[in-house]
Amino acid sequence: MDVWGDCYSIGKWQDVIVETLESGDSAPIFNINPKDIREFDAIFLGGGAAGRFGAAYLRALGGRVLIIDRWPFLGGSCPHQACVPHHLFSDCAAQLMLERTFSGKLWFQKLNDKIVSIKNIVELFRTGRTGPHAVMNYQTKEQLGLEFALNTEPTIIDSHTIQVGNREFHAKNLVLALGAKPVLPDISGANLKGVFNSQTLVEKLDYEPGNTIVVIGGGKSAIEYGCFFNSTGRRTLVVARHQIMPMLKDAESRAYAILMMEEQGMEFLENAEVMEIKGNAQGKVKSVSIKTSDSIITIDTDFVFMGLGEQANSEIIAQKLALETGEKGFIKVNRHMETSLPHIYAVGDVTGPPMEMFKARKEGVCAAKNIMGQTTEYKAVDYPDFMHTHYEVCWLGLSEEEARQRHANVKVMKLPPDNPNGLDVGLPAGDRMMLYLMAKPRMSGFQKLIIDGDNRKVLGAFHIGYGAKDGFQYLNYLVKKGLTIDDLADMDELFISPSYFIQLCRLRAGDPHFNDM
Amino acid sequence: MDVWGDCYSIGKWQDVIVETLESGDSAPIFNINPKDIREFDAIFLGGGAAGRFGAAYLRALGGRVLIIDRWPFLGGSCPHQACVPHHLFSDCAAQLMLERTFSGKLWFQKLNDKIVSIKNIVELFRTGRTGPHAVMNYQTKEQLGLEFALNTEPTIIDSHTIQVGNREFHAKNLVLALGAKPVLPDISGANLKGVFNSQTLVEKLDYEPGNTIVVIGGGKSAIEYGCFFNSTGRRTLVVARHQIMPMLKDAESRAYAILMMEEQGMEFLENAEVMEIKGNAQGKVKSVSIKTSDSIITIDTDFVFMGLGEQANSEIIAQKLALETGEKGFIKVNRHMETSLPHIYAVGDVTGPPMEMFKARKEGVCAAKNIMGQTTEYKAVDYPDFMHTHYEVCWLGLSEEEARQRHANVKVMKLPPDNPNGLDVGLPAGDRMMLYLMAKPRMSGFQKLIIDGDNRKVLGAFHIGYGAKDGFQYLNYLVKKGLTIDDLADMDELFISPSYFIQLCRLRAGDPHFNDM
Repeated sequence: MDVWGDCYSIGKWQDVIVETLESGDSAPIFNINPKDIREFDAIFLGGGAAGRFGAAYLRALGGRVLIIDRWPFLGGSCPHQACVPHHLFSDCAAQLMLERTFSGKLWFQKLNDKIVSIKNIVELFRTGRTGPHAVMNYQTKEQLGLEFALNTEPTIIDSHTIQVGNREFHAKNLVLALGAKPVLPDISGANLKGVFNSQTLVEKLDYEPGNTIVVIGGGKSAIEYGCFFNSTGRRTLVVARHQIMPMLKDAESRAYAILMMEEQGMEFLENAEVMEIKGNAQGKVKSVSIKTSDSIITIDTDFVFMGLGEQANSEIIAQKLALETGEKGFIKVNRHMETSLPHIYAVGDVTGPPMEMFKARKEGVCAAKNIMGQTTEYKAVDYPDFMHTHYEVCWLGLSEEEARQRHANVKVMKLPPDNPNGLDVGLPAGDRMMLYLMAKPRMSGFQKLIIDGDNRKVLGAFHIGYGAKDGFQYLNYLVKKGLTIDDLADMDELFISPSYFIQLCRLRAGDPHFNDM
Repeated sequence: MDVWGDCYSIGKWQDVIVETLESGDSAPIFNINPKDIREFDAIFLGGGAAGRFGAAYLRALGGRVLIIDRWPFLGGSCPHQACVPHHLFSDCAAQLMLERTFSGKLWFQKLNDKIVSIKNIVELFRTGRTGPHAVMNYQTKEQLGLEFALNTEPTIIDSHTIQVGNREFHAKNLVLALGAKPVLPDISGANLKGVFNSQTLVEKLDYEPGNTIVVIGGGKSAIEYGCFFNSTGRRTLVVARHQIMPMLKDAESRAYAILMMEEQGMEFLENAEVMEIKGNAQGKVKSVSIKTSDSIITIDTDFVFMGLGEQANSEIIAQKLALETGEKGFIKVNRHMETSLPHIYAVGDVTGPPMEMFKARKEGVCAAKNIMGQTTEYKAVDYPDFMHTHYEVCWLGLSEEEARQRHANVKVMKLPPDNPNGLDVGLPAGDRMMLYLMAKPRMSGFQKLIIDGDNRKVLGAFHIGYGAKDGFQYLNYLVKKGLTIDDLADMDELFISPSYFIQLCRLRAGDPHFNDM
């Protein structure tokens, strides 16, 4: 199938994608300009975040580029199996927490004691995900003018030559943007029916999970999916080898996040290990044995979720190309995104953590610049971060503890303030928090800004609630440029803003020796 | 009642406020330091946004300040009758739109054809609002150390002397921070029972409105409350003398916002005027006569909402002090916040539009600085702005039309892109939009960034969806400092971010002559 020269609308792309996925048709979809006789400056293997953005940037710089991807759409695993379903599930968790909190009050239905179907939500995702896929194909072809070959597993002939079907493509450089996939742990019973990870959940779930779910892991994925399962009304037990949520460094923010999850009924077993997942005669999960610090417990369940991090999609390619790889198969690169072999670059999740969108995309851009002669370095540092519980949790910079280790005069601005009522207080509250504010103040969130009292610069920021994530992108950029309490005090806040940082700073900024707030 | 020297917890303040409001007790609540013998640098009449922030700043600068307010709490009308209830109602509108869209699907109750109680939501606000009041009293007294006299209508003796009960207070300066209240229009029947504005709705509603509501006005307040009424399941007709939503200048963004409201069933009569509100024998609204461009129509209703802007709370004070005032009683001030009389300043809503929190607070700070000898000017310009429909709508800078008038080479980055499917497309989607994205793509929002293609600077930004409001505060600050497409492309986005500005810019930024996206 060759689509070059025809305008494919978003609707038409959606039809093509659905049909290709359903039929299992393995014919490649080519979008190659037959009139461009230039050699490709680069072939990107993988059209996800890293490959698509790298290729777009390379083309914007004037180069010629080809993307090759195994799926019939651009965008990679994110919209198909990873970040997009996770965001859908986290939205459901936020919505369900609200409905359960107000169960039977105002106009809310009586939801408590009811269990909500996980299978229906997964099926909604399966049918809905091709919409975003279609937009990305449209954008990539019609707006960005990129050449690509989709729906194909290419053959690597050598470091400059790739074969797709019976066509061979030559390029000056090869960029590996192959992504990652969930780690499959070495736990007895991990292959039983009923054991899922983020990828298999959306691809394979074909029954309604029972009333108890065991989640293995303590990081972002484990917590995010765990909160979703919990919000559906199921007992949810999170088993973590060490601490849960270790990435949230600020102790007070982390304690708030965990307390609120516990109030929703989440159960955490830290410093615990799953010994075995036991199956029944049909090869389906029936229970999980967990070793805690003082005993071994058994939980009956038909659904186990593993949120244990990611490994590189690098096995085949690394064998073929004798690339240096590290732990979990991540391809080793320098700050130019160059691998151990000349003219071969690697970008995105395949090079290892952080497994974040901006990192993948910016590595793609970095490779594109170097290929086109703009010598550039990139390493993901000092970035903002987030995860979901039933809330949205965002952070940047230093925790209060880290700040106090490094700076003599640390000041803290936060809501709710330290006070004799503790968290039973109606502020903060921004958009999508107002019902909690009015009816159940202790659920209206937590936020904290950490400042160097000497030079007045912001050192860190933490927000648990909703609606601050978009702002943390810009706030992090400003903090890296030296944002002060005085700069914040001079901004124009949009009241009621989800984060109260501007307001709190203004109340104190007049004082050369300001106090905590 | 004198509270100086005792620590009042947030819980204790809540009890005091509830009891005072319910009993109608008119005894002032004094928090005056008996040991401070300094003359006050300023007395702030009014402890709302402008007065409280101005006073806090003045104290931070080392001055002595007294706040006097008619209510038993600090914070002014915002948390009691204005911005906070509006945000609660807008949250309800967002929630109800979601529930109606998914009525009977997934776990959602069948809400369509059901009418939701407005009275219950208003009552929730009435009982819930004292929580935020208590936090602000606690913050003002325990954290900011401010002196105040609450629950009192003071007598102005002269421009330096204020009497509260039998106590007289002297100050070098007087700052009028008296706020504003809804305009009462000269429409026949405007005093009937059943005619409300934002203030009287929360104070006086004592019945369940019927199935049809008429809203008078086309500005923020009219649209925001109109969308809330509509979301409760009632026919809602908005009657505007001119255009609705004139403040949203970007034609495409405005058209999207209006189209989405119309899809929720909102009805708009533009260039129309309410001739008369007719009452029944009991003095209660029964119908509204409306003159349109070609006819006069009558709508039967028992509930009319007037969203016609604000007028100053300046009648009494302006008579007493012979201050210069303008239209709607707004007190005239220069950029130092000085009124026409020496040593008398005015700040906040009482000086006129924009009636926004940042403007009130920053005027308060400006007056404080000038009083304390730091000569400062302030005028609200180039600020970000927002309103609610069923969505959150944010904007800053120039519309596309304004940009094209002033700049030769304007570029636009937007989602959904211009495409043959129009708005029936699944992107953009950020947090709290994912269910729409998956099930009903045309409701997943609209966003637009406007850039000068020559110097690559951002000229304007528009966002209809959820979760971008907090970011617009920081984005506006960056735009005023000259933010470019290249700066945006280099930021670390938190994917899926509600606004896709960083991502869209990165796809184009490699090109010195980039195109629209």
